[in-house]
Amino acid sequence: MTSPPRAPAVQDPPAKFVYDFTEGHRGLSGLLGGKGANLAEMTRLGLPVPPGFTITTAACREYLRTGTPPPALRDEVSAHLDALERRTGRRLGRGADPLLVSVRSGAERSMPGMMDTVLNIGLSDTSVRSLAAQTGDERFAWDSYRRLVQMFGETVLGIEGDAFADRLADAVAQAGAADETGLAAGQLERLTRMFQDLVCERTGRPFPQDPREQLDLAVRAVFDSWNGPRARLYRRQERIPHHLGTAVSVCAMVFGNLGQDSGTGVAFTRDPATGQQGVYGDYLRNAQGEDVVAGIRNTVPLAALERLDPASYAELLRLMEVLENHYLDLCDIEFTIERGRLWMLQTRVGKRTAAAAFRIAVQLVDQGLIDEAEALRRVSGEQLAHLMFPRFDSGAAPAPLARGVAASPGAAVGVAVFDPARAVARAARGERVILVRRETTPDDLDGMIAAAGILTARGGKTSHAAVVARGMGRTCVCGAEELRVDHAARTATTADGTVVREGDVLSVDGTTGRVYRGEVPVVPSAVVEYFEGTAPPDADDLVAAVHRVMGWADAARRLGVRANADTAADAARARRFGARGIGLCRTEHMFLGERRALVERLILAEDDQGAQRALAALLPLQRADFRELFSAMDGLPVTVRLLDPPLHEFLPDLTDLSVRVALEHRDEDVRLLAAVRRLHEQNPMLGLRGVRLGLVVPGLFAMQVRAVAEAAAECRAAGGDPRPEIMIPLVGTVQELEIVREEAEEVIAAAAEAHGTRLDIPLGTMIELPRAALTAGQIAEHADFFSFGTNDLTQTVWGFSRDDVEASFFAAYLEKGIFGVSPFETIDTDGVGSLVRAAALAGRAARPGLKLGVCGEHGGDPDSVRFFHEVGLDYVSCSPFRIPVARLEAGRAATAAP
Amino acid sequence: MTSPPRAPAVQDPPAKFVYDFTEGHRGLSGLLGGKGANLAEMTRLGLPVPPGFTITTAACREYLRTGTPPPALRDEVSAHLDALERRTGRRLGRGADPLLVSVRSGAERSMPGMMDTVLNIGLSDTSVRSLAAQTGDERFAWDSYRRLVQMFGETVLGIEGDAFADRLADAVAQAGAADETGLAAGQLERLTRMFQDLVCERTGRPFPQDPREQLDLAVRAVFDSWNGPRARLYRRQERIPHHLGTAVSVCAMVFGNLGQDSGTGVAFTRDPATGQQGVYGDYLRNAQGEDVVAGIRNTVPLAALERLDPASYAELLRLMEVLENHYLDLCDIEFTIERGRLWMLQTRVGKRTAAAAFRIAVQLVDQGLIDEAEALRRVSGEQLAHLMFPRFDSGAAPAPLARGVAASPGAAVGVAVFDPARAVARAARGERVILVRRETTPDDLDGMIAAAGILTARGGKTSHAAVVARGMGRTCVCGAEELRVDHAARTATTADGTVVREGDVLSVDGTTGRVYRGEVPVVPSAVVEYFEGTAPPDADDLVAAVHRVMGWADAARRLGVRANADTAADAARARRFGARGIGLCRTEHMFLGERRALVERLILAEDDQGAQRALAALLPLQRADFRELFSAMDGLPVTVRLLDPPLHEFLPDLTDLSVRVALEHRDEDVRLLAAVRRLHEQNPMLGLRGVRLGLVVPGLFAMQVRAVAEAAAECRAAGGDPRPEIMIPLVGTVQELEIVREEAEEVIAAAAEAHGTRLDIPLGTMIELPRAALTAGQIAEHADFFSFGTNDLTQTVWGFSRDDVEASFFAAYLEKGIFGVSPFETIDTDGVGSLVRAAALAGRAARPGLKLGVCGEHGGDPDSVRFFHEVGLDYVSCSPFRIPVARLEAGRAATAAP
Repeated sequence: MTSPPRAPAVQDPPAKFVYDFTEGHRGLSGLLGGKGANLAEMTRLGLPVPPGFTITTAACREYLRTGTPPPALRDEVSAHLDALERRTGRRLGRGADPLLVSVRSGAERSMPGMMDTVLNIGLSDTSVRSLAAQTGDERFAWDSYRRLVQMFGETVLGIEGDAFADRLADAVAQAGAADETGLAAGQLERLTRMFQDLVCERTGRPFPQDPREQLDLAVRAVFDSWNGPRARLYRRQERIPHHLGTAVSVCAMVFGNLGQDSGTGVAFTRDPATGQQGVYGDYLRNAQGEDVVAGIRNTVPLAALERLDPASYAELLRLMEVLENHYLDLCDIEFTIERGRLWMLQTRVGKRTAAAAFRIAVQLVDQGLIDEAEALRRVSGEQLAHLMFPRFDSGAAPAPLARGVAASPGAAVGVAVFDPARAVARAARGERVILVRRETTPDDLDGMIAAAGILTARGGKTSHAAVVARGMGRTCVCGAEELRVDHAARTATTADGTVVREGDVLSVDGTTGRVYRGEVPVVPSAVVEYFEGTAPPDADDLVAAVHRVMGWADAARRLGVRANADTAADAARARRFGARGIGLCRTEHMFLGERRALVERLILAEDDQGAQRALAALLPLQRADFRELFSAMDGLPVTVRLLDPPLHEFLPDLTDLSVRVALEHRDEDVRLLAAVRRLHEQNPMLGLRGVRLGLVVPGLFAMQVRAVAEAAAECRAAGGDPRPEIMIPLVGTVQELEIVREEAEEVIAAAAEAHGTRLDIPLGTMIELPRAALTAGQIAEHADFFSFGTNDLTQTVWGFSRDDVEASFFAAYLEKGIFGVSPFETIDTDGVGSLVRAAALAGRAARPGLKLGVCGEHGGDPDSVRFFHEVGLDYVSCSPFRIPVARLEAGRAATAAP
Repeated sequence: MTSPPRAPAVQDPPAKFVYDFTEGHRGLSGLLGGKGANLAEMTRLGLPVPPGFTITTAACREYLRTGTPPPALRDEVSAHLDALERRTGRRLGRGADPLLVSVRSGAERSMPGMMDTVLNIGLSDTSVRSLAAQTGDERFAWDSYRRLVQMFGETVLGIEGDAFADRLADAVAQAGAADETGLAAGQLERLTRMFQDLVCERTGRPFPQDPREQLDLAVRAVFDSWNGPRARLYRRQERIPHHLGTAVSVCAMVFGNLGQDSGTGVAFTRDPATGQQGVYGDYLRNAQGEDVVAGIRNTVPLAALERLDPASYAELLRLMEVLENHYLDLCDIEFTIERGRLWMLQTRVGKRTAAAAFRIAVQLVDQGLIDEAEALRRVSGEQLAHLMFPRFDSGAAPAPLARGVAASPGAAVGVAVFDPARAVARAARGERVILVRRETTPDDLDGMIAAAGILTARGGKTSHAAVVARGMGRTCVCGAEELRVDHAARTATTADGTVVREGDVLSVDGTTGRVYRGEVPVVPSAVVEYFEGTAPPDADDLVAAVHRVMGWADAARRLGVRANADTAADAARARRFGARGIGLCRTEHMFLGERRALVERLILAEDDQGAQRALAALLPLQRADFRELFSAMDGLPVTVRLLDPPLHEFLPDLTDLSVRVALEHRDEDVRLLAAVRRLHEQNPMLGLRGVRLGLVVPGLFAMQVRAVAEAAAECRAAGGDPRPEIMIPLVGTVQELEIVREEAEEVIAAAAEAHGTRLDIPLGTMIELPRAALTAGQIAEHADFFSFGTNDLTQTVWGFSRDDVEASFFAAYLEKGIFGVSPFETIDTDGVGSLVRAAALAGRAARPGLKLGVCGEHGGDPDSVRFFHEVGLDYVSCSPFRIPVARLEAGRAATAAP
């Protein structure tokens, strides 16, 4: 047999490393970066974008791999540069009207720590004079050259910025000027020479005069900055792969600083704060973009441009409409007017507040621009959660005392306290406390727990204060850098000298990062009032928008949403918030308060009879609890988890009691101490709890199962429709479940018979140990449902005790980028998630139709909800307050772009 | 296109439910049970087996599935019964010479709690008379019938045994006889009638007179007994699937109780105690098999048969040789001589002591009967471990005071103490203590830790005492039921009234289960002396056998064996025992003793400088430790694990210190208490330890890495060949490893440069968290090796803190069959093992040739070693004492039948 002739080897055409702005489009952001792709898109739309081209991320990747730019890149850049020169009729850094270009980095996602921009590439000792002659503005030309040498020196050649800044300050001082704008052309020329000397001194080479060399070095510097330490850290934190690389856009310069008919500005197609359509933005006359960002000079509202340059203003409004109708969203635009001519330098879909997001999404639907599924993609559960916090009455708020990072949302009012011990003491006296610290450490934990709000002067979203506050649900503003905190003096001083002393009242807004002096009135969230049913769906336009979006989400979602609720009151609230059942009722909460004495009797019982008497006394109390709960959730499932925590949680603390016994020697304490010692565990999280307790303490689970069954029978007898489900916690192996299940079935059958009714009570298990997930197929054969306990699963998969590790090292881990986000906030899909996925598959394979839910706190976390949808769970269960968030995210997940 | 004509559907012949003894063979034990398969094998070999047939496990399974015997079974049994009657020339329970049969259960593995045997099926009010006439022995006939009614009543009809026993005792008393052998024929007849009345009274039906009905009921009872509670529990404990079912063998009766020319006995082809070839066993004249087992009458040594019945004796010896040459192993035989004719009733490969196992294996190789691979299969690591414990000098031992379950091996001598608190107190005074308890509970833990040996009167291998003692490595005998323990009186009394009082010396042999009064001299293990090199390989025949078997194992094994060793002394010992390197050096042990003060300084340091000074002081000490270790293992790898435990382990206990502060108010204690509180963790196992510590405490890991690198450089300078490997503990995510690795590489490079040498030190990680296993592919990209820390992995996969749970509920779990064996003893292949397997695969896929080891205690456990071999690890690492066991099991694993 002969094989067919092989096709001759064909060489792929070499990859194209450079795209003209006329070639790309916004779909190519992976290749051209966000900036490059949007420049290409605007060019494609016929908007006035200065001509230019983008060097692809592929070129960067090749550079990072080999250490040198790909050989083909030089020629491609030359070809595109020639084309650019032909189109503009100018030559880069040469001739009477020299072409200057900007070089800007642009990864798919913008990234702090990367080199951003070098402007005015092309200026040299020669071309600076041509520029002066051509523009007729010698000062402008030298200032541009001065800026190039400075920017190039800093970002491309790596000379520390202070060296330039010091020389600039000296020059300003010598000239007797107020600031650099007071320097004349000659002074700027001298300064530029000094900068060039500095470059030569530091690099051993003169400032490059060849414009192409400037360009190539700048491109290479952008590539290198991809691997700068801050960029690497940011990528670790954000889980952006290191291999992606950045693109580089090269764009012909236009100048907003060529006189009063020039200027630069930013514009938004809608108000990013409220979502209202209109003209929003700022404009700065006779200035370059960096001046707007630097905030050196005062901008005017964009509307003022109508008076200053009506033609450009009208053109800008027209282009804004083009962009919004094209992007179908709020656009954020940078523009420059050069001597009366409008140029678009950048656009992107704009950031917005939570309220604006909901309003804009609904408006766009009403305008027929997007459909409801797209509207769901335009809002997020996190935004909805922000709208649900009480907030300060903005009308009544004074000017903020300070601003910091909005680290953990909420509105907290209290007296400033500068020391954790005093925070505990004052809180114990009933005061509401704001703990103010330079930064927090694990030693501050008690104080943080006692405080209503936390304010720090240092640290960002991943600082200890931020991480711990979020974990505990405390309001927190951190990194309010204008505050000088003096722990010894117990004061915080603002930049303008205002002093906050211990005991002064502060209002801390963890949603906006603002801090106010005095008590700012708190207004409840209208959105929550709407969910509670105390405000109508048309209470205001925000509520109306939320109402409609929630309707779309509920219609779209496939995931059910249940509540974690232990009391009838919580259950009723959850139901108002849209829960369709209870996914987790923790029975341990029913053993607290006065009942603790009964549990103590159970634990201290000397024989089995004593223990059974204690259980018998608990039975009617539990039964009554369940009856109330089933009534509150009548007609909907209520998943009751049998007792989970170790018994010693119901007894006094070992250390406290030991000290008391040592000091007071009371007989009853001595006896109690013996029991506490006996039950003491090194690692109670990994000890005698959950199903283990049920297997070791005779009658405990049977009592609970009986209480559930009898409560159900009684509710039914009273005309109700109780739907209990019983969940067995901490199962690690199917044998545990088999034994408990057998006993539970007997107890239920006996209760049903005694009440003359039929009780179909599903018996399921938590999957909260790695072993349960790994053997889910075996366990499913004896379980009517699985509920993933992702809190405990996270603890065991990572080997973390949440109580211990959040305070001790999570902040360090987030700062080093070891975590992108705490795995207790958002499910760790690689680790914990992979077990959930595998267990769901194995469980359903062993028992088709097995009901799958999740009842860890992740059930109310937006990103996690999307994961649970994707994995195919039937429902999530979360705290009542989080239910709307879960509903929304479940709807979004169901409409996610594939 | 036409498809080829299909073959006409052929119906499978119906499954065959009954095999004649002439049809099966020993390979069919899954179908015929162990007993049935061996009866068939002996029949096939032409040995004199009474004819019979076996009902298969398939029939049982069908019965268990449907609740009734398969319809075809009745006819098949009839056909085989007909054949049996034809062959014997007798009819079941009919005629002048009625055929009687035995019905015996026989699963693939023998199983306590299942119905065992019913003899004499076929006897009825009619046939008993024929039997009397035929044998000429009326007493024999009625005694046989009495036994049938009793056995049938108890095991088939479920009447409690006491009801029969009471009537029997009454009859003996009325007859004025010493025991039942004193009853005459008439008395036995009356007793039989009374038994029949009892049956009728209890079951409402007369004792069945139809022999076939007797047979069918007995078969059904055997089937039912498969699901008896004890059998189910045993299967749960032993992980035998519930669906297998049992076979039933039906065999023509032969009688050893037909006079002085009859008898019954057991024989072994070799001495099961020593392995010596010869004639071993017991014989009982004029008796049935059950009499031998019951021990009612005294047996004679088998050799006596030569005098009593030389022909049968010679025949027996011949058959024993046939069997041994056929089974190629020690055979354990049951036989009966009926009026001078020898019948073989059962054979199986016999149990033997550890010493016998080694001797027999070597002998069989020398006889050319088996090869070396087969010899390895004939011994086990557990047997070798038993040979390595010191033992009591059997020559010097008195008669045992009591016997119990050999629960945890070893030979312990000490004073009897009956209370855990006093055990602690006496041990603190330096006494060696044997804790004697009725049974132990978690409250006894302190006393168990303090004791050299533990002795209980109740409980088996899975009792609390046994489980905890094995976990702690304490010698333990439990369930010594002849002892009455009186805790209040502090005495233990034997059946013969001997009283042991507190303070009396006891010697407890945990390897044999024997307990002696007084101090029995302990002799060291000759096998250990051989491994230590202090005894030659030919010290005695046992040592010689072990020496040869170890040679075969080493030649066969693919797994490397390393030691867990922290000191040069341990390393040297491990090397003598055959370790080829250290797989785990725990550096925390180097921080104890006087150095604890330095660690305390590190922890209490008020600033970074203080901490760095403390680290600097530790550096030379660590370096010296490593130098010694590398020298002891010169030329072999030494894996150093960086500091793992939480820092507070180096500080005083929180509760103790709190009490001291409350009572004494010393300033230095107050300061220390603040640090202890700060570092206190709810669940230290899941807290700030391992790599987390390395990332949070600046300079800690760097100091350790530097000590390793400098020690290696110094050893090399001194002409040595140090081969350190550095292992990073508790990694959960690759980011942790990346950061630590980067720092370590810098430190190593700096040390190498400073010493003018090259240092290639592999950097690897423990895989001891589920998340590390689940993301092993990512981690492997930054790890030179993996070492599975299966102790911690077991703790997190199951959510067990070993310190807490072994005492609190493992005994209950083993007793309920939730565990077959503690997952800390033998790796849990379904859970922990599945992660090890997946991580090994993912790691090697990401980094081909990645070196994989295990350093948990499972590395020295026989079953676990086989698993690690199967998963493809490169080495196991275990405590020095376990190294020979690991070597042997690694060799066995490599030669395991596929």
